[in-house]
Amino acid sequence: MHPRIRGLARVRATARCGAALPAAVSRASSSKAKAAPPEVVFSGIQPTGTPHLGNYLGLFLPFLELQRSTPASTPVYLSVVGLHAITLPQDPAALVRDRRNMLASLLACGVDPERTTLFLQEDVREHSELAWFLNTIAPVGRLQRMTTWKSKIATARNANSEDEVSEEDLRLGLLSYPVLQAADILLYKSTIVPVGEDQVQHLELARDIAQVFNRAFGDVFPVPETRVVPQKRVLSLRDPAQKMSKSAPNPLSRISLTDSPKDIATKVKGAVTDSTATITYEPDTRPGVANLLTIWSAFDEAKRSPAELAAAAHADGWGAGKLKAAVSDVVAAHLAPVQDEYRRIIADEGYIRVVAAKGADRAREQAAKTMAEVRAAVGLGGI
Amino acid sequence: MHPRIRGLARVRATARCGAALPAAVSRASSSKAKAAPPEVVFSGIQPTGTPHLGNYLGLFLPFLELQRSTPASTPVYLSVVGLHAITLPQDPAALVRDRRNMLASLLACGVDPERTTLFLQEDVREHSELAWFLNTIAPVGRLQRMTTWKSKIATARNANSEDEVSEEDLRLGLLSYPVLQAADILLYKSTIVPVGEDQVQHLELARDIAQVFNRAFGDVFPVPETRVVPQKRVLSLRDPAQKMSKSAPNPLSRISLTDSPKDIATKVKGAVTDSTATITYEPDTRPGVANLLTIWSAFDEAKRSPAELAAAAHADGWGAGKLKAAVSDVVAAHLAPVQDEYRRIIADEGYIRVVAAKGADRAREQAAKTMAEVRAAVGLGGI
Repeated sequence: MHPRIRGLARVRATARCGAALPAAVSRASSSKAKAAPPEVVFSGIQPTGTPHLGNYLGLFLPFLELQRSTPASTPVYLSVVGLHAITLPQDPAALVRDRRNMLASLLACGVDPERTTLFLQEDVREHSELAWFLNTIAPVGRLQRMTTWKSKIATARNANSEDEVSEEDLRLGLLSYPVLQAADILLYKSTIVPVGEDQVQHLELARDIAQVFNRAFGDVFPVPETRVVPQKRVLSLRDPAQKMSKSAPNPLSRISLTDSPKDIATKVKGAVTDSTATITYEPDTRPGVANLLTIWSAFDEAKRSPAELAAAAHADGWGAGKLKAAVSDVVAAHLAPVQDEYRRIIADEGYIRVVAAKGADRAREQAAKTMAEVRAAVGLGGI
Repeated sequence: MHPRIRGLARVRATARCGAALPAAVSRASSSKAKAAPPEVVFSGIQPTGTPHLGNYLGLFLPFLELQRSTPASTPVYLSVVGLHAITLPQDPAALVRDRRNMLASLLACGVDPERTTLFLQEDVREHSELAWFLNTIAPVGRLQRMTTWKSKIATARNANSEDEVSEEDLRLGLLSYPVLQAADILLYKSTIVPVGEDQVQHLELARDIAQVFNRAFGDVFPVPETRVVPQKRVLSLRDPAQKMSKSAPNPLSRISLTDSPKDIATKVKGAVTDSTATITYEPDTRPGVANLLTIWSAFDEAKRSPAELAAAAHADGWGAGKLKAAVSDVVAAHLAPVQDEYRRIIADEGYIRVVAAKGADRAREQAAKTMAEVRAAVGLGGI
């Protein structure tokens, strides 16, 4: 094999050594000679339809905070990633609805399409195009060792454990998912990619692919920084051993962003807690109660921690009933203006389409520039 | 896994049974209920630079015959497939030259850009886009069983046998090569795909992918017919146990389309034959002599077979020397007008660029239509 693209094993070794150093040190040493590339923020989100509280607290709020805190001169991209969604079977009609609802939800929650380039991944052809180029340097062995595809198949099949999943079920799309993700990121020359803990392995691959590409074909891609976002883990209301999830069979296990106050009250009232009469914050031994406190804390005006809220409830001699009522109220109150906005937006299909079209145009502008560089570097540009 | 895309194993079984039937019968029975889709011819060719005699006789001449014999109402596509080329390491500057030289060679040999949509694959984004969609239904296990990626790695590494090649060397691009090939074909709703024996496995995959897609998402793709072209196997002039090949280290082993009459004479004179004094056509025991007779026959005005030419030479009492002189002359005479044309075209870079741009525009027109259908079928069209 050509020496130019043999290096992925080596980069991996380096990356692993580097991972033992504090991130700031390893980053500084790897880019000491060059001026830092301009910062670009990229984030992707699955078109899961109307989001639930887990999505809202775990993905939306951290993104909104990022949108707020990022300097105005730094581009921020938020892509609803339909090409990733189809790596698992989807009902086409539902997928159309889910993409529309996801855009409407993001807008209703405060994503500002003037500030953030909000777009549908599948509207920008360059995502799959760059994925093909990166395919040619991504080692199959490394993709097979990724853990995410197994968990995705396990979830899709309602398997009890990843051990029940065999490679026989694996489609190429699921295996190459992390390469498309690398393309999403590198297409915009992103430097900051906020991800959950479960995506760190994929980000490391994207970093390595960027480095191998640059070494083979010249400096095209900044090496993106992995920024692990501490995610609020919201649990199922029916089984606090599980995360709140769209794919759980019981709809009472999750609060949707569009649930009415009455629905919210019913679901929270039915939340599984335990038989201890008082309120304490003990996530390991009392996950159901801790989950309610986590949700409350996320919406608390006074920004009290779950433990502080528990102490207050305990001092007032509350039981689970009073806690549930308080949680229902705070969730319903917080969601009310979001729901008003959502209803307004979802009724205005023309507006959603315009936002998506403008976002895609803006994304395409940078994507086309990057791809022109990539094609030229590889020898597939002009003749 | 969703029932809609479980079926590839089943289709495969059917395809295998079908392969035991005469092709015409199995085709008729599989499409009995529907009107036959309009015929479309698709052919792809690697940008190997200036072709050698093996390419010319094995690929160019059969394509030219197809261009000539296909009814004028049937679209004919010929794609120079740069996205496939980069699945093995390439020197970028050489690749630019090779793509230009390949286009010039095809035009010089008689590809008519008015009749045939001649274009560079990498100029039409929809190839990699459709490949992503097809990735999501292509089973990894089946791709791992394909034999071509092993032989490609073996050639690239100058390994003696495919057994020396391990999956560790495999990049995702090489594993997914057959899926991109399926995308190339299906993007134009091709029905006729002339291929060599070594590509039959890939075509069978393209057929199965088309059927699985149609079953899951509605009838979008005609199932392409594999048309195996009996390829003239031109052997190395230095080692008649090998095919004539661009990657062989000794340039004397192959005749380039641009070789001067003197170079041709030198190379043919140095061709390895055997110590038998007379001329006979015995491919198994006298491959070197048979190879010269094959080349001669391909260019013979009187369209005599290698065996007939051997009989004539035998009757005249020729030895290897006279045979070689005759072969040199006929090759040089046949290539002279092609070379004149090639020199004229390669000097006119503007013309080559215009041909490529016009071809890409025409290809894109159909590609865009197909992709609009694909996106809508899958649920990734308009919102």
